[in-house]
Amino acid sequence: MVHYKLTYFEARGYAEASRQVLHLAGVEFEDVRIPMGSSPQWDELKPKTPFGQIPVLSVDGFEIPQSMAILRYVSRKFGFAGKTPEEEAWVDAIVDQFKDYAIPFRQYLIALRNGDTDAEKIKNEVSFPARDAYFKILTGILEKSKSGFLVGDSVTFADLVVADNLVTLQKNGFFTSDEYPKLVEHQSKIQNLPKLKEWIETRPDTQF
Amino acid sequence: MVHYKLTYFEARGYAEASRQVLHLAGVEFEDVRIPMGSSPQWDELKPKTPFGQIPVLSVDGFEIPQSMAILRYVSRKFGFAGKTPEEEAWVDAIVDQFKDYAIPFRQYLIALRNGDTDAEKIKNEVSFPARDAYFKILTGILEKSKSGFLVGDSVTFADLVVADNLVTLQKNGFFTSDEYPKLVEHQSKIQNLPKLKEWIETRPDTQF
Repeated sequence: MVHYKLTYFEARGYAEASRQVLHLAGVEFEDVRIPMGSSPQWDELKPKTPFGQIPVLSVDGFEIPQSMAILRYVSRKFGFAGKTPEEEAWVDAIVDQFKDYAIPFRQYLIALRNGDTDAEKIKNEVSFPARDAYFKILTGILEKSKSGFLVGDSVTFADLVVADNLVTLQKNGFFTSDEYPKLVEHQSKIQNLPKLKEWIETRPDTQF
Repeated sequence: MVHYKLTYFEARGYAEASRQVLHLAGVEFEDVRIPMGSSPQWDELKPKTPFGQIPVLSVDGFEIPQSMAILRYVSRKFGFAGKTPEEEAWVDAIVDQFKDYAIPFRQYLIALRNGDTDAEKIKNEVSFPARDAYFKILTGILEKSKSGFLVGDSVTFADLVVADNLVTLQKNGFFTSDEYPKLVEHQSKIQNLPKLKEWIETRPDTQF
């Protein structure tokens, strides 16, 4: 049996969707979680990773770096990447667009953590506009969707990334339930898929 | 015959690697280039694009947004995405890492263009450190490569993205030829592939 080991911080963050794909596929994997931030464990591990970063997926010892590369790899392997080349392209596009929003959004989180005086300015001028632009795109896609999934007629890794990101926004007060009802409805649909619900109920509960 | 239309600004930027893949594959495509920045053409086109952005690839009228989603789509279709799932994952990882560097690097370009007084500070504290971290990763990969390609034993879209980005850095004085000799050697290998050389010699010459 292939041995999958997924190493990341004690967080959902950039590893959660890959964990969810493995669970949905019924694949056993070693779910390694190291403390957030600096730690002796991370100091020791960092120079051994391919890019000095985690997540890293090890497949029988073969290491794959970069969260979305890992996610695409497991999703293609287990049928969560779209059913045609065109569906795959759209799943990819939605998740690439996610990173284009997540990177500027993170500026606000960093400013908050550092207690920067311009955190509110970054929130209003950079981070929330990026969030809103992305959520309008997603709303438009969901309005046209007949299945309720973002792409095609079954769950893909794009659904997982979007639904889990909303959890993070909700948990941290960056999203209220009366905003973007289509996204809330989508999140509920995805996270109530029986196998995913089971994962969510038993996984470690983390803030991010 | 499938009709491919790739629409982008008058630049290499985020569309060039996809153009190169189509050319390498011997696929005819409509290479639509609109003026950079604001223009009546862009004002008219923007609301009609899936995500309000270009590049967009149209495949017999079916539209695909997001540069890397387009690039993966054409690369998978025509054999430039890696030969195994593991090679595909590494090609993906190298290009995802590219975006993690390109986004902070762009902050410097924007600061320069706006004449911001802190442009130099952004360069030294954000943009060049991001460039150097990425280029060290690439150098490490190339040192281990037996073929001289970044992944496997033939050209992939990761090679195209990396080699063309170096052109942009060189043309704009952000890279001198005595830095990172492995990258310069790789660029020369890639851009001297006969079919790619032919493309480079006849394509419109643009600064970015």
